[in-house]
Amino acid sequence: MPSTVKVFDTTLRDGEQSPGIALSCGDKVKIAHALSEMGVDVIEAGFPVSSPGDQEAVRRIVGEGLDSRICGLARCSRKDIDAAIDCGLDYVHMFIATSDIHLQHKLKLTREAAKEKAVEAIEYARKHGLAVEFSCEDATRTEIGFLKEMHQAVQAAGVEVINVPDTVGTIGPPAMEHLIRELMTVTKVPLSVHCHDDFGLAVANSHAAVRAGARQVHVTVNGLGERAGNAALDETVLGLMAFYEVDTNIDTRRIGPTSKLVSRLTGYAIPPNKAIVGANAFAHESGIHVHGVMGAPSTYEAFGPELVGVQRNIVMGKHSGAHSVRSKLADYGIELDDAQTDHIVDKVKRLADSGKEVDDAELVALASHILGGRESKKVKLKEFAVFTGMNTTPTAVVSIEVNGDRKTGSATGIGPVDAALNAIKSVMGNDIHLVEYRLNAITGGSDALCEVSVRVSKDGGKSLMSVGKAIGSDIVQTSVDSTMEALDRLYCRKE
Amino acid sequence: MPSTVKVFDTTLRDGEQSPGIALSCGDKVKIAHALSEMGVDVIEAGFPVSSPGDQEAVRRIVGEGLDSRICGLARCSRKDIDAAIDCGLDYVHMFIATSDIHLQHKLKLTREAAKEKAVEAIEYARKHGLAVEFSCEDATRTEIGFLKEMHQAVQAAGVEVINVPDTVGTIGPPAMEHLIRELMTVTKVPLSVHCHDDFGLAVANSHAAVRAGARQVHVTVNGLGERAGNAALDETVLGLMAFYEVDTNIDTRRIGPTSKLVSRLTGYAIPPNKAIVGANAFAHESGIHVHGVMGAPSTYEAFGPELVGVQRNIVMGKHSGAHSVRSKLADYGIELDDAQTDHIVDKVKRLADSGKEVDDAELVALASHILGGRESKKVKLKEFAVFTGMNTTPTAVVSIEVNGDRKTGSATGIGPVDAALNAIKSVMGNDIHLVEYRLNAITGGSDALCEVSVRVSKDGGKSLMSVGKAIGSDIVQTSVDSTMEALDRLYCRKE
Repeated sequence: MPSTVKVFDTTLRDGEQSPGIALSCGDKVKIAHALSEMGVDVIEAGFPVSSPGDQEAVRRIVGEGLDSRICGLARCSRKDIDAAIDCGLDYVHMFIATSDIHLQHKLKLTREAAKEKAVEAIEYARKHGLAVEFSCEDATRTEIGFLKEMHQAVQAAGVEVINVPDTVGTIGPPAMEHLIRELMTVTKVPLSVHCHDDFGLAVANSHAAVRAGARQVHVTVNGLGERAGNAALDETVLGLMAFYEVDTNIDTRRIGPTSKLVSRLTGYAIPPNKAIVGANAFAHESGIHVHGVMGAPSTYEAFGPELVGVQRNIVMGKHSGAHSVRSKLADYGIELDDAQTDHIVDKVKRLADSGKEVDDAELVALASHILGGRESKKVKLKEFAVFTGMNTTPTAVVSIEVNGDRKTGSATGIGPVDAALNAIKSVMGNDIHLVEYRLNAITGGSDALCEVSVRVSKDGGKSLMSVGKAIGSDIVQTSVDSTMEALDRLYCRKE
Repeated sequence: MPSTVKVFDTTLRDGEQSPGIALSCGDKVKIAHALSEMGVDVIEAGFPVSSPGDQEAVRRIVGEGLDSRICGLARCSRKDIDAAIDCGLDYVHMFIATSDIHLQHKLKLTREAAKEKAVEAIEYARKHGLAVEFSCEDATRTEIGFLKEMHQAVQAAGVEVINVPDTVGTIGPPAMEHLIRELMTVTKVPLSVHCHDDFGLAVANSHAAVRAGARQVHVTVNGLGERAGNAALDETVLGLMAFYEVDTNIDTRRIGPTSKLVSRLTGYAIPPNKAIVGANAFAHESGIHVHGVMGAPSTYEAFGPELVGVQRNIVMGKHSGAHSVRSKLADYGIELDDAQTDHIVDKVKRLADSGKEVDDAELVALASHILGGRESKKVKLKEFAVFTGMNTTPTAVVSIEVNGDRKTGSATGIGPVDAALNAIKSVMGNDIHLVEYRLNAITGGSDALCEVSVRVSKDGGKSLMSVGKAIGSDIVQTSVDSTMEALDRLYCRKE
């Protein structure tokens, strides 16, 4: 087993082939910077011949002078290689399908013809000064004798690395380990592996390949990629460290922030239950568990969240007990006696049983209510109306009482929600900023419930930040309600 | 390796411990029915002592008389066991932590005391006629000598199955295989395994345990569960079939529908790039790939979607070529010549480069436009306005021209969107149904773009179903636009 492994990131190529992802050139450059800062060895920046946009993005990324080596994908054709050269690349990832099923149904080529085509294209690329990483597409379904023949042929043609793609995700870890060991007997250049997650085994397969001697792994941020995606960078790298003491150049603390960036730019949410970077990875709900985590995080955490640059999060729910409720409220400066704690725990359990999640804002509201705190609001909505329509600029009017002083204002917006929030801002003063507005997806019908959470700040100061949340059927009213709650909380805290 | 393995589903227990999930009693019964129909051997229906809601749900599920065996979780205490008995259970899953870290920080017990407590509780449960499955919590971090001692002790006390939980998800497949082999030397009752996905290895670890002789796997639908979740049922079962020829009682065709049901009831979306049941698992975008898939699905699919009860989906994007565009439009009865095809492919690529996904509705619209088809709309919006506010019932007015005939109507709703869509319905007639309304999540600001897609039908007939989609900043206007598009398409098709 090698002691270090190179990380070849293909978020910008295979990841971008995920349905619905189409990153702009600027977004790709941002991601390339993040990958390079994280310590990725190779960035596959795109497939230059596939579209002018891809070509332009690869060219720009090459021009950024990043620490990572930049690579582009090419089929075994002069047109593809020329497109790569045009982008200023000096490293190209070339492939040809070698399984009988691909040769017959897709390429309509004989094995011999595919081999010749590959060698010819590699020689052309080498003549033009390109370093070549070569992939026999669908390697894991290629007859092993022919696969070895291909490896020997492309090696003789001068490739630098040979990558083994499990293109359709059809292998399991023991077979992958066996395959790589077999290929090691004929391959002198470093072997790489490229796993797809069709059976949920991309990470385990990548590890199996490394155990057998592979010295590079192809990965994507958040496991993006065609169909079920590629091996996730975070899981692959952390697992190599934790289970095999195999190192990479990755700065693990950059994993969380990079994952968030890619999620935001691709529009692919990070599933809450994703390993390592999912919102739940370091979230604890169960009362039993939380008690453990408080005492010693390692009781229920494989490693601390700081290792991968994310946060721990304690969530209240039906399994939450006194320990977690007390600890969470203490974070907000609210101290409780035993009776008060029991009272709140009881409320949380009853809410949870009725299907309601209790987050920070709601827990604080609950506690304030039980402690007899915030009954009388400092910021009250007295009047609100909005209208919109065809050839009508959405317009809203609000009247708000702040500490007994009533103010009225109106504003327009690009939609009724925007107009309503602008009207609130016009009344509350220009130093109030809407830092975040989040509307949870509505599916079902136009009368389904929606959940709006907002974050407002005063003077842009982080210390004066407040969260409001509301649930309702009327999206405009719910947006206003959540904003009013956040503002009220902000004003209550100020004094 | 066993030739068949039992599936123990803990969606309703460990899955429900995911932050933010709190299923109602009725929801749990629905899920239990789906699990039983799918062929799950054991359903862990809840943790009876943890809350009155859990207790009630377990009792109701026991009463349903399902084919699956029903089990409930209990700590090693009389209170927990009594709660299980109260629910009418005859099978209980009992656990005690055995790793030093859990013993010291959570239980504050010595190893000897933990063993005694376990044996005493098992004897109590056995005396009350319960069959017992036992787990040494955090088994994978328990000193192996003590773990074997525990296995021997609980076995002597009369348990039916011993489960090995990788509670914190801290083991890799080779170590899991080794651990199970070691435990097999002292365990006569069947071994089970319960893996968490903290390193993305829950499925591979479950397989490794089966390779070493485990005869039961704990899984959850969609991989729900604490933190990164448990081993996903679909991936675990399909992988056992595909790579190890190990069978289960699962009817794989029920996997897709059950996954969707659980996603809907828990509110945990299925990530598009999840293996097996993700929306992308059988979606193909890349032009190269789609050509392959058309010719022979096995070029890019490990197995057909019908095996797991889901659909294949061809998506247009920047990598899409003539093959995929032509094939998709043929589904809609639109035949193209080469020049028209090239024209549309060019448009799709340009849209994709600018970050825009092209789905069915948009592709059809694009084609219709290029073919000179639908310029003049049959259903036109002539007037529209909506108002809402505090103490105001949201009300909308619309005026629509259908084949030159103008009609005006108004309606109220529980929000402005609902009011607007009700007003459209009042004008278009009662046989128009809004089958689906979907609003994509908005994050960023109140002026962010939102995407609304609607599906309308006439007379509830599937053949007269139409899709409309619009993107805009004003949520109400965008909802109206998408509905008008769907209606127009419906009326154009009718003639």
